[in-house]
Amino acid sequence: MTDVNALLKTLALRAEALDAADPLAGTRERFLLPEGVIYLDGNSLGALPAAVPPAIEDAVCRQWGTDLIRSWNDNGWWDSPLRVGDTLGRLVGAAPGQVVVGDSTSVQLYNALVAAVRLRPGRTLLLTDPDHFPTDQYIADSVARVLDVEVRRVPAREVRSVLAAEGFDVAVAAYAPVDYRTGEAYDMAAITSAVHEAGAVMLWDLCHAAGALDLQLDAIQADFAVGCGYKYLSGGPGAPAFLYVAERHQSSFDQPLTGWHGHADPFGMHGTYTPAPGVASARISTPPLLSLLALEAALTAYDGVAMADVRAKSLGLTGFFLECADDLLEGFGFTAATPREPERRGSQVALRHPQAYPLIAALVARGVIGDMRAPDLLRFGVNPLYVSYGDVLDCVRQLREIVSSGEHRDPRFRRSSTVT
Amino acid sequence: MTDVNALLKTLALRAEALDAADPLAGTRERFLLPEGVIYLDGNSLGALPAAVPPAIEDAVCRQWGTDLIRSWNDNGWWDSPLRVGDTLGRLVGAAPGQVVVGDSTSVQLYNALVAAVRLRPGRTLLLTDPDHFPTDQYIADSVARVLDVEVRRVPAREVRSVLAAEGFDVAVAAYAPVDYRTGEAYDMAAITSAVHEAGAVMLWDLCHAAGALDLQLDAIQADFAVGCGYKYLSGGPGAPAFLYVAERHQSSFDQPLTGWHGHADPFGMHGTYTPAPGVASARISTPPLLSLLALEAALTAYDGVAMADVRAKSLGLTGFFLECADDLLEGFGFTAATPREPERRGSQVALRHPQAYPLIAALVARGVIGDMRAPDLLRFGVNPLYVSYGDVLDCVRQLREIVSSGEHRDPRFRRSSTVT
Repeated sequence: MTDVNALLKTLALRAEALDAADPLAGTRERFLLPEGVIYLDGNSLGALPAAVPPAIEDAVCRQWGTDLIRSWNDNGWWDSPLRVGDTLGRLVGAAPGQVVVGDSTSVQLYNALVAAVRLRPGRTLLLTDPDHFPTDQYIADSVARVLDVEVRRVPAREVRSVLAAEGFDVAVAAYAPVDYRTGEAYDMAAITSAVHEAGAVMLWDLCHAAGALDLQLDAIQADFAVGCGYKYLSGGPGAPAFLYVAERHQSSFDQPLTGWHGHADPFGMHGTYTPAPGVASARISTPPLLSLLALEAALTAYDGVAMADVRAKSLGLTGFFLECADDLLEGFGFTAATPREPERRGSQVALRHPQAYPLIAALVARGVIGDMRAPDLLRFGVNPLYVSYGDVLDCVRQLREIVSSGEHRDPRFRRSSTVT
Repeated sequence: MTDVNALLKTLALRAEALDAADPLAGTRERFLLPEGVIYLDGNSLGALPAAVPPAIEDAVCRQWGTDLIRSWNDNGWWDSPLRVGDTLGRLVGAAPGQVVVGDSTSVQLYNALVAAVRLRPGRTLLLTDPDHFPTDQYIADSVARVLDVEVRRVPAREVRSVLAAEGFDVAVAAYAPVDYRTGEAYDMAAITSAVHEAGAVMLWDLCHAAGALDLQLDAIQADFAVGCGYKYLSGGPGAPAFLYVAERHQSSFDQPLTGWHGHADPFGMHGTYTPAPGVASARISTPPLLSLLALEAALTAYDGVAMADVRAKSLGLTGFFLECADDLLEGFGFTAATPREPERRGSQVALRHPQAYPLIAALVARGVIGDMRAPDLLRFGVNPLYVSYGDVLDCVRQLREIVSSGEHRDPRFRRSSTVT
């Protein structure tokens, strides 16, 4: 026990020093975190930014309630998918005019995947990850069916060698830069480059990366990317997704979801579709404005923040988490699923433990909120804008208390259901 | 002038008597209409229901801000697309378990049209209306392209004769019960029945009907229907759309947008898609919850309201509008585009006038809000829950004042742009 207390004291001093030196310490005030909660589930649903409640009250009461239909022009509703797209673009390394916001990730993915496969007529393979988030795999299968191509499931770490051997037949590679379960990160630039060498098109799903990693879509010459607004970007439950279409592909973006907002002359009410110029052709139809305006307000939490600083702190936090886990959880049956090399880490730490479910449930009951993925993964996401080194230590300390005392064996922590 | 004053007095007494006898007069208090505004654009964006602001504040501050990720279970987020679907189902004549809420009309339409065409393999025609709302035509063309069928544009009033002649080759007929420009209504039961006699599948787009007409989807044996939540249903800007899948088609609903929320075991995180039982398979992925919960609160405006009463008042209002227009606008160059027979009217009145744009702009400047559709249609939608007979008379009276005085010739009412 003395050893542990000494360890805890040392780690607490470390956390204190790291927090004191944190250039992003000030952004925590931009979020309304509930008293007494340590929130490590921002990789699933981001915390509430303080800018959102007044923005939503204005959107509901003044824009909708008072200005009514005139808000489409007078309050910028019509331009919002492109305006918020540009704001979001800065956070993923996209110059203005390449990102549109709206719909869900699954819908954006379907739209972009069809358009991407259509860019490579005659090629028959769509590569995706067997460990990709389920929706990505289902949508890939569905797209393959309507376009009569074949899905080949190749793990991210093997995709470069498969491309070298069989790349001539690959139309599109659709991958995530971060494994949503383990938090392992892949080399986006190297994979994109290998895909291009094979003459194929690269589509990235940034759901578990946008807002936490220092993404450089333009610099790595990504072709398409999609992502959601409600994880690290903290845009609110079911916040609209986004779609990046590299400028060079916009004039040939041939999407299946040809809604009227993507038309060159939407109010001409024409009977046949003519795509708008630029990324506007990727608009589908009326976006869910309350959710979209919440996302816009949420993104102000990034005002004046450099994504390089976000990434540096994220790695600091996950590194410190692993260090705390090494020191405090040894001998309790945990193994780290997240790689130790910083360049191979996203913005979460995943630990394996056979009692993952009750352990997470016991943590949540204490106000330390992470989540789990069956069968044995405990996931802890760190959003550098509001998570501190002190939070990380406190989480691991409480996890040790729970596992060492057997607190998680309480019947109320038995498995029922969980939701992302 | 004396004649007009006498006419106005008579009409005012009529309006007063009609409003005094209106069984729905009380529902106007369920909406927060701005002072001094007559709102006849609820066919484009419904007014703000009083139940929405507190519901949204709760959704943002308590559910998202405080309960965070736990809201998926504890605040019923996971069930909301089906829960709100059932509530909405009552308003369109659908028994529970057949409606799901989420995404946009264009997306729901694509999903349902693909599934509908797949129900009739070997048939090569998709019938739709050349006067259908643009997005419906664009999506039909896109679906035809991926499924290799042909779109045939047949006006709603001719569809029954085309079905009688060539119905054997029709897979799906996709129509709206109300023309969004003229407000003309079609006989849904007769068209559905003719489609079925041809062995084809019927898909209705209810955007301009749901919440105002007494729809009976189950009774007429509709196969599929879609619609938006933000017109007569008053769910807020870009409120989620809805999809009706008749129970008999649910086990064979073969959709292209196979998102993970429609999976039989979504949290099993399986790599291949297995549809959930029932209408749940029509879920796609995480819905925009703030917009969805606003819609749910908005629908409480229909609590205790019979759709037959809504329809009766709607016809009363549009009939009275046409009567006022006959009396007050004669000789000023207007013609009614909306049919006079009640059964052929939706819930809007459309007038043709060469100066439609400046006339509407001048009305809006006076706080009488309708809209226009190029080149010459003035549109006035009536939502029976908050529009009175007095509003209707006041609108026509002011339109007469404008057109007779030439007020609309002011340069500030020149055409720039309009938005639905």
